[in-house]
Amino acid sequence: MPAPDTALAERLFRTLREQSLDTPGVTRPSYGPGEQMAHDLVRGEAEALGLEVAVDAAGNLYATMPGRDRLAPAFVVGSHLDTVPHGGNYDGAAGVVAGLSAVAGLRRAGVTPPRDVTVMAIRAEESTWFNASYIGSRAALGLLAPEELDTVRRSDTGRSLGEHLEEAGFDRAAVARRAAHLDPARVHGFIEVHIEQGPILVERGIPVAVVTGIRGAFRYREARAIGQWAHSGAVPRAYRRDAVVAVSEFVAALDAAWGDLEAGGHDLVVTVGQLYTDPRLHAFSKVPGEVRFCIDARSLSTDTLDTVRDTVHRLAAEIGDRRRVRFELGPITGTRPAVLDAGLRGRLADAAGRLGIPAIEMASGAGHDAVTFANAGIPTAMLFIRNQGGSHNPEEAMDLADFEQAASILAAVLAA
Amino acid sequence: MPAPDTALAERLFRTLREQSLDTPGVTRPSYGPGEQMAHDLVRGEAEALGLEVAVDAAGNLYATMPGRDRLAPAFVVGSHLDTVPHGGNYDGAAGVVAGLSAVAGLRRAGVTPPRDVTVMAIRAEESTWFNASYIGSRAALGLLAPEELDTVRRSDTGRSLGEHLEEAGFDRAAVARRAAHLDPARVHGFIEVHIEQGPILVERGIPVAVVTGIRGAFRYREARAIGQWAHSGAVPRAYRRDAVVAVSEFVAALDAAWGDLEAGGHDLVVTVGQLYTDPRLHAFSKVPGEVRFCIDARSLSTDTLDTVRDTVHRLAAEIGDRRRVRFELGPITGTRPAVLDAGLRGRLADAAGRLGIPAIEMASGAGHDAVTFANAGIPTAMLFIRNQGGSHNPEEAMDLADFEQAASILAAVLAA
Repeated sequence: MPAPDTALAERLFRTLREQSLDTPGVTRPSYGPGEQMAHDLVRGEAEALGLEVAVDAAGNLYATMPGRDRLAPAFVVGSHLDTVPHGGNYDGAAGVVAGLSAVAGLRRAGVTPPRDVTVMAIRAEESTWFNASYIGSRAALGLLAPEELDTVRRSDTGRSLGEHLEEAGFDRAAVARRAAHLDPARVHGFIEVHIEQGPILVERGIPVAVVTGIRGAFRYREARAIGQWAHSGAVPRAYRRDAVVAVSEFVAALDAAWGDLEAGGHDLVVTVGQLYTDPRLHAFSKVPGEVRFCIDARSLSTDTLDTVRDTVHRLAAEIGDRRRVRFELGPITGTRPAVLDAGLRGRLADAAGRLGIPAIEMASGAGHDAVTFANAGIPTAMLFIRNQGGSHNPEEAMDLADFEQAASILAAVLAA
Repeated sequence: MPAPDTALAERLFRTLREQSLDTPGVTRPSYGPGEQMAHDLVRGEAEALGLEVAVDAAGNLYATMPGRDRLAPAFVVGSHLDTVPHGGNYDGAAGVVAGLSAVAGLRRAGVTPPRDVTVMAIRAEESTWFNASYIGSRAALGLLAPEELDTVRRSDTGRSLGEHLEEAGFDRAAVARRAAHLDPARVHGFIEVHIEQGPILVERGIPVAVVTGIRGAFRYREARAIGQWAHSGAVPRAYRRDAVVAVSEFVAALDAAWGDLEAGGHDLVVTVGQLYTDPRLHAFSKVPGEVRFCIDARSLSTDTLDTVRDTVHRLAAEIGDRRRVRFELGPITGTRPAVLDAGLRGRLADAAGRLGIPAIEMASGAGHDAVTFANAGIPTAMLFIRNQGGSHNPEEAMDLADFEQAASILAAVLAA
C-alpha cells in the first residue's frame, strides 16, 4: 500500500510553525496573515505536486489529484488551517497535511486513485475569531447565511466577516448569493483527519481512532442564581439566601446525575466552565447575593441531552425553592449530534486493520468542519490522531509517527 | 427616669445625612471630609451643652459631662462617625448620637450622674478605607503599632495613615509613641450603641438587644483549588480534574457541616463570599482548571471555630484527593471572640425591664470598636437597635422610635 510522503509533512509542519510562531505557541487568525501564509504554503506544495488548484469565493483552497474516473464524485479530505491565539501547530493543519502527504504518497507510488481526490484547506473554523461555527465549510457548500457577512464580527478587529473577506481579496458578493463550490451530489465522501483534543488515545496507548459521531450540545451561557446580599457576620443561617451555596449544591448534584447517566451507559460530558460572584460586589464579609455560571452538556444522543436538560431544570427549581434563591437559566443554545457514515467508518477501520495499526472507536466531543459535511448529507468520517496536552494551547504535542499512521490509513482508503 | 433628647438626635441625624449625602447613601471616609464634618458637628452640639471637649492625638473626640465623683473612673459611651462609601447614616453615628442625647437628657432633667460620662466619637472604624481594624479606638488606648502609620494605606488615596493624620492636623508623633488618651484603669465601662446589621430584631419584632459577645472569626481570603484546564467536549469524566466541581462539593459539604453544628447548639456563621473562575482563562467550553474562593467563619466560641477549621481541612483533603484537585487554602487570619461584661449586660437588661422595653440577647457577628475596649480589660457592653436593610448600604433604615428606646436604656444606666 502506498506510504504517505512524511518528508513533505515534516517540512510543512516545520514551516507552518516557523511562519506563525507567536510565543508561546502559534497564531493563525481566521482571514488573518497567519492563515493566509498557511494557505499560500499548502498551495505552493500542491502546485509543486502538479495538483489542480482552485480557490472559492470564501478563500477555501482545493488541490485535486485526478482519478481514473474523472466523472465519478470525488473524495474530499481536509480540515482547517487557522488556529486559536497562542494555539498548537496541529489542530486543523494535521488534516490538510495528512491529505497532501497521502496524495503525494500515491503519486510517488504511481497509484492513480479510482476517483478524484481533493485536498481541501478550509477557512475560519476556530470560532474564537468570529464567534460563529464552520464559516469556511458552510460557505463552500453555500450554507452561510448572507446576513452573517454583516452581523458576524472578528473579536479582535471588530470588523465584519464581509469586510475581512473583501480585505483578503475574496468574493463577498458570491458568498452573499450562496455560491457553492462543492455540490454534495458530486462528493463521494469527506474525511477529516484531526488530532484528538482529549486524553483518551494517550491514556490507552493507541495511535489513532475512528470517530463514531460528533457530540451535540446544549448550552446555558448566561445562567444566574439570585439570592440576597447580606452581612456575613450578622445574618444567621435561617435568614440567608446564599447564591454561592445554592449554585454549589446545584453543580454537585448535576455532577452526580452525570455520574449516574454515565454508569448507565450514556455518552455524556457536562461542564460548568464559568462560575463567578460579581467582582464589583462580592467581598469575604458578604453573603453572596448573585452568582453567574454556564452549563455545557454534550452527547451523541439527543435523548440523553433531553434528560440532562430536564435534570438541570428540576435541580434549579428544587434547590432554588429550598434555598430561596432564584435560578434564571437564560437562553439555551445548542447543536444536534452529527452522525458519521457507517460505511466510511468501516473502510477506515478495515484499512487500519490491514495495515496492522491499532485503532479504537471514540466519539468527538468537539465540533469540526465534518459536522457541516455530515449535515449536508455527504458521507463523512473522521480519524483522530493521538495527541498530548489537549488542544487550543501551546502544549499540544502530536508525534509524527502517529501522524504517519493516520496518513497511511487515509492513503489506503483513497487508493482503494 | 430621664428621657433622652430626641430633638437633638433628630437634628444631628438630619444634618449628618445632608452634609455627607453621596447618592445613593452617605459617604464619610475615615480621616476624610465627611468624617471631619461629623466630628465638627458633634463637637458643636457638645459645646452647646457645656460639656468638656477634648481631641486626642489620633483625632478621637471626647465630650465629658462631669459626674458627682470626678475622681471615680468614667463611663465612656460612643461609636464611630465614618461610613463605608455609599453607606447608611446610622452605622456608627447612632452610638455617638445616643450618648449625646442621653447626656443632654440627663442635663435637661437636672440629673448629675454618679461618675463622669464621656461621649466618644471614634475615628476610622470602617476597614474599607484603611484595611485595618479599629484604628481610632486602638490609638485612643495606645494600642496602635507605630509601623501601621507607614504600612497602612487608604484604599482610595494610596497615602499612608500617618500622612492622613498629618494632613488632618493631628499628632502623628504622639500616636507613634503610643500616647494613650484613655487609661483602662480610669474607665468604669464602655457602652457602644449600634444598629443591628442583621435581620433578627426586625424578624422578631423587638426594638433592642443586649449583645452577649462579639464573634471571633477565621478567614481564608485567598483559597484556591487547582485542577487542570481541559476541553469540555473532548475530555471524559474519568480524566477530569475539575476545580469547579471540587469547590462546589466542598462548599455544599461545609454548609451541611454548619447545619449540623447549628442544630447541635453551636453559635456559628460560615460564608463563602467570593468564588470565581479566572475571567482571563475560563470559557464555557473549558473544564475549569482553577477556582479562587474565600471562607469566613465566625463564632462566639473558639472551640467551635477550631472545629470548623478542622472540617475545612478535612473536606479539602478528602475532596481534593477524590477529584485530583489541589486545595491551597492560603494564609489564615482571624480574631478572637470578645467577651462582653456580664455585670454591664445585666444593668442594660435590668434598665430595659424597668422601662418596659422588650429586649432580647444576641451575638454580634460583625466587629465593633467594643472589641478593642473589651480586649483591653475594660468592662464593655453593646446595645443593638432594630434596623431594616442591613448595613453598609443605602437601604439601611433605623426607626427613630427604636433609637429612642436604646437611648433611654443608656440614659438610665448612666444616671444610676
